[in-house]
Amino acid sequence: MVPHLITALAGPLNELEQRILDATPAIERWFRLEWMEHTPPIYAAIDIRNAGFKVAPTDTNLYPADWHNLAGDVLPLAVQAAQAAIEKICPEARNLLIVPKNGTPSDSDLANLARLRQIFGMVGLNVRYGSIDPALKKNAVYPLPEGDDTGGPITFEPAQRIGPSALRLGLKHFDPCTILLNNPLAAGAPGILEDLYEQYLLPPLQAGWTVRRMSRHYQCHDDICKRFGKLLGLDPWLIHPLFAACGEIAPGARPDAAVLREQVHALLAKIRRKYREYGIHDKPFAIIKARGHPLHLVTVRDVKELDALLERLPKCKGDADQAAFGPAAGDLLVQEGIAEAGQIDGAAAEPVVYTIDRYVVGGYHRLRQQQAGPHGHYVPLAFPGSVQPPRLARPGHDEIAASNRFYLYGVVGRLALVAASYELEATDPQVLALHEEAA
Amino acid sequence: MVPHLITALAGPLNELEQRILDATPAIERWFRLEWMEHTPPIYAAIDIRNAGFKVAPTDTNLYPADWHNLAGDVLPLAVQAAQAAIEKICPEARNLLIVPKNGTPSDSDLANLARLRQIFGMVGLNVRYGSIDPALKKNAVYPLPEGDDTGGPITFEPAQRIGPSALRLGLKHFDPCTILLNNPLAAGAPGILEDLYEQYLLPPLQAGWTVRRMSRHYQCHDDICKRFGKLLGLDPWLIHPLFAACGEIAPGARPDAAVLREQVHALLAKIRRKYREYGIHDKPFAIIKARGHPLHLVTVRDVKELDALLERLPKCKGDADQAAFGPAAGDLLVQEGIAEAGQIDGAAAEPVVYTIDRYVVGGYHRLRQQQAGPHGHYVPLAFPGSVQPPRLARPGHDEIAASNRFYLYGVVGRLALVAASYELEATDPQVLALHEEAA
Repeated sequence: MVPHLITALAGPLNELEQRILDATPAIERWFRLEWMEHTPPIYAAIDIRNAGFKVAPTDTNLYPADWHNLAGDVLPLAVQAAQAAIEKICPEARNLLIVPKNGTPSDSDLANLARLRQIFGMVGLNVRYGSIDPALKKNAVYPLPEGDDTGGPITFEPAQRIGPSALRLGLKHFDPCTILLNNPLAAGAPGILEDLYEQYLLPPLQAGWTVRRMSRHYQCHDDICKRFGKLLGLDPWLIHPLFAACGEIAPGARPDAAVLREQVHALLAKIRRKYREYGIHDKPFAIIKARGHPLHLVTVRDVKELDALLERLPKCKGDADQAAFGPAAGDLLVQEGIAEAGQIDGAAAEPVVYTIDRYVVGGYHRLRQQQAGPHGHYVPLAFPGSVQPPRLARPGHDEIAASNRFYLYGVVGRLALVAASYELEATDPQVLALHEEAA
Repeated sequence: MVPHLITALAGPLNELEQRILDATPAIERWFRLEWMEHTPPIYAAIDIRNAGFKVAPTDTNLYPADWHNLAGDVLPLAVQAAQAAIEKICPEARNLLIVPKNGTPSDSDLANLARLRQIFGMVGLNVRYGSIDPALKKNAVYPLPEGDDTGGPITFEPAQRIGPSALRLGLKHFDPCTILLNNPLAAGAPGILEDLYEQYLLPPLQAGWTVRRMSRHYQCHDDICKRFGKLLGLDPWLIHPLFAACGEIAPGARPDAAVLREQVHALLAKIRRKYREYGIHDKPFAIIKARGHPLHLVTVRDVKELDALLERLPKCKGDADQAAFGPAAGDLLVQEGIAEAGQIDGAAAEPVVYTIDRYVVGGYHRLRQQQAGPHGHYVPLAFPGSVQPPRLARPGHDEIAASNRFYLYGVVGRLALVAASYELEATDPQVLALHEEAA
């Protein structure tokens, strides 16, 4: 049995939920029309925060790990969604190459990779793992963690260029139609992945950590939530985290203090105005986001706190972090902090929604253990009844309310997915080249 | 808990199952390529018989009832498949009109219609029921059977032609993009369904009982299984029921005895040869199929038995049956009898597989109660773990074997679905008109 989810439900969320539920036909139609024009990322995991008064995404991961954390009963849903994806991408496919992240896999990595093999294996694809880690010179065989019965050991084989003129990526005697990147390319895209001939590399290279910009994602999300809010007569702030872009920053480098102070100040003022509008008495806070930087995920409640942080910065191990995360630059962002109100057994329970193609296929709660702090351990907990679509009955009954909350999470997750699809289109090298030609 | 399925597993089925499982990549690819060229019926329910040594479809119902018999845990799978179907057919859709069968609905009819409303409601469509029963002059409201919590009462509204020049079918203030027929049109297609303007009528009119010919369906199935068998190096007989077409017959009319005798004789001889080839010691039998006719579903073990049946025929209430089933002709078929070897608690358990679009979304066993006879009562029993796709491990373990058996059922069900799509294409009035023009 799964523990019951307790959410500190303030008034506005019930209202938000009810409005979302009542608008199901308009919402689903809106998504259908979006997917006619735009291509969703092959898969994603979206972190969501439910503050009671607002529900918004805080991270849209295009290289989702931890697939094994999804409950087993959602597996058929994932398989069906993957089936639909492959039908669209490459119906003739026989082989799928999964590119794992570099380095020696942990037990969790192996369980994740085994689950992905299981999903795409059930779609009827021969799945193998092609490592792009330059350190891997020959096959490495890893047995699955004890208790994992999803298949045999996992073999990392060195990915290589194959075929006439070495135009394709594959393995010896293994020519895949589709390549599934489960590697965030933290050090940039290696040459081996570039200029592939008639192969689908999913997600595309512009989703890589060194190329992707959070500010673009949230700008797309902002635009989309405004349109979506208009459709529903809904304040987009209820489903979107406010943010301010603070430019580029190299890992470990010092940010431009003046810009950061100004943006933190302005963002906190914006949040304060919104809180006043909705009669919320919480203290606003912002989260600094700068992947690979010591400031990443640091909470700021006022500018003084920021000044103290900036003063302490030289003591950070900038160089070490730079080495770990690679040399490429990323962007610096301050984002509205949203405190998770959902609790299970006294621990904050942060929802994570998983998608394949345009379908929500499951999710779980990450239980933040109180003693572990913000960067501490998380315990996955499958959504109770996560696979249940919304009940048409009115909320009130606990069980119905819980199952309906997952519909709201599914909507919020899919809005982030639409944002990611806009983002990837805007940075598609082919589209950019066309624009340049036209200019 | 669901009782465990006991199947009298003779040697050959294990081998058949293993071959089907081993060929999963080739099979799934084959289906993907078929669905690139052909359009599956919007939904279907396929009756399957598992004789232990062969597994084949015995009925492909294009107006499936009893959706409420599917286990609740497969609902998300049905919703996702329906979502994919609507995305293809009419992404702009807001409204879906379900046409129920004529007459006063039974509790089972209501539960079925409520489940369909639930599925398509979760897709985000406004679902209403438009009756084409000429006897229905005003709205009729039916409360759901006790314990059914899938929604409010069901209202049958008289369907009417609407819009400029009355070119579309709908209700007052309700213009659907798609019309879902859950009415087999046993008395032929009424004028109200003909020549609809820019609306999708699903399944199309040529699927109606008075137009559809079983012989064409099984001929398509025969061709498809030959191709599929070739791909897998598999005798198509292991997945296809032998049959012989015996021409047209009006309900209650006397069949051409000479033709029927000849075909029964030839079919039994064919089955006998196959039994000898596989070392099966059962006595072959054939099933007469003639919808609306007293001979329908009658078992024949030899020609003498047939003669006795034909002699008794004049005593049948031909006229009454004719009135009940409508005046249109149907076709007469004799089909290889396949005895169900699967048993639950001593009763034969006949699998039924449900599909939406090209996806298997669930199924159940119909338990034939021994005292009730061939036309007697059935008890639905959801597949245990029906939603589980095949396990990649080798069979042997009971649970794995059971879950893998459902993969085989899913393959057999989808082969019947491909046959239905060929059949509907071959009888598409627009395609036929093109052929006539060309000739």
